Amino acid sequence: MVTPGSFAAATAVQPTVDGGFTASIPEGWDIIGNVDGGILLAVAARAAAVVAERPDPVTVTCHYLAPGRAGDHTVQAEVVRSGRRFATARSTLLDADGRPVVTTLGTYGSLGAADERLHVDGSPPDLPAPEECEHLVGGDGFPPTFTDRVEVRLHPEDSGLFRGEPSGVPQVRGWFRLLDGEPVDTIGLLLAVDAFPPTVFNASLPLGWTPTVELTAHVRARPAPGWLACEFRTRFVTGGFLEVDGEVWDATGALVAQSRQLALVPRG
Amino acid sequence: MVTPGSFAAATAVQPTVDGGFTASIPEGWDIIGNVDGGILLAVAARAAAVVAERPDPVTVTCHYLAPGRAGDHTVQAEVVRSGRRFATARSTLLDADGRPVVTTLGTYGSLGAADERLHVDGSPPDLPAPEECEHLVGGDGFPPTFTDRVEVRLHPEDSGLFRGEPSGVPQVRGWFRLLDGEPVDTIGLLLAVDAFPPTVFNASLPLGWTPTVELTAHVRARPAPGWLACEFRTRFVTGGFLEVDGEVWDATGALVAQSRQLALVPRG
Repeated sequence: MVTPGSFAAATAVQPTVDGGFTASIPEGWDIIGNVDGGILLAVAARAAAVVAERPDPVTVTCHYLAPGRAGDHTVQAEVVRSGRRFATARSTLLDADGRPVVTTLGTYGSLGAADERLHVDGSPPDLPAPEECEHLVGGDGFPPTFTDRVEVRLHPEDSGLFRGEPSGVPQVRGWFRLLDGEPVDTIGLLLAVDAFPPTVFNASLPLGWTPTVELTAHVRARPAPGWLACEFRTRFVTGGFLEVDGEVWDATGALVAQSRQLALVPRG
Repeated sequence: MVTPGSFAAATAVQPTVDGGFTASIPEGWDIIGNVDGGILLAVAARAAAVVAERPDPVTVTCHYLAPGRAGDHTVQAEVVRSGRRFATARSTLLDADGRPVVTTLGTYGSLGAADERLHVDGSPPDLPAPEECEHLVGGDGFPPTFTDRVEVRLHPEDSGLFRGEPSGVPQVRGWFRLLDGEPVDTIGLLLAVDAFPPTVFNASLPLGWTPTVELTAHVRARPAPGWLACEFRTRFVTGGFLEVDGEVWDATGALVAQSRQLALVPRG
């Protein structure tokens, strides 16, 4: 059931008479005051999917232009090319002052379940059962309130990052699902790939907050109902940048999404 | 020295009075009649870099909309947001009939050499010297004429793919440089990441041509002069899609670019 606090409601878009969209992002989806980047991407992608007349983001890229705040927004979306099987569309989310917050470019289609598997060199992360993982919860400001809206459960080996006990490996693994059994559709996967703590919080590096420049997600299939097993890893912190590579596996053991983001290493 | 047949000349853009650009893509940069995707991306990115007023594509995404042909093109480019350090811009390359060929979204900045290396979990591919690798050359139609314009030298273990002797591993490693000592700038890296044969040609899979849907490249630094060591790998061929992950290392052993593309598995 979709409640007002649900992901679907928080990221809904309404068409306007001039061909644009409005969106109202509620409070409570923020991390230290900034709306989670996955929420911003989901809103922008929903508008793009509408104009693309296709339900699923096969591959979507989001560039983060300014911190997002709860409140009224507009979305401009347009099709670049519509083909038989896919349509490519772009969208920009603007705040109430008309300032661009995120901009996206994606190709949309209609995906099925993850059936055809011709070559698979990888497997879901080896996670303890969800109840044996650490549930990120909000309450006292940090971890943030965003974590009250989703169920993110970290692998015990990766969850020391908030207690000043980084694992030393820039990796974060864990389970993801929405609250109250809300199904995760392919737009929900765009939230899953940006819902975990930064990998570098587990590195023994002199790092602070790492703002995302860009995130690209490939969605391979509609996820089966149930927990999603997620893994995020950083291999290169160089030249002031770092990448975060993500994989999301559904309850059938199928890879349903891959992601990569580029983030900034803060300058001292 | 930049000759008329150079990469720089082939991908040059000229501003027009109406704020757009023209580009003339010469013959000889094609693969079986279609202009190489890296050339199309480079043309579109050059125009975006001009309007962004920044020289280097820090992260750029290209969606491939139609096969490209040699000849006159136009490019529409616009800034989405310009900040102090970066500017985000998008561009669309159109053929002489006004048909969109590729569309891009990127964030541009000014990069230096690859100096700061805080965390590096990886290394350049272990390649024999360039003269001991297999030089892809054109001539009889296949390998294609594109390979007459660049120096791509494949690792001997990965070069059986054109002789009907795939390695069985969907991986391609080798050296890349431009002809006649033309330097590879950060736009040239966008060519490097799309200049190698498809990884899946080395897989023992019933696959044919794999059209690219989307390619994203992160450029970490300006490459040092000399050969670039490149590695491309595919881990998942599922749901009708496959990804290709690339890394490009310069002559100093620094990672200068990462890439990921999403391609289609042809349907029988």
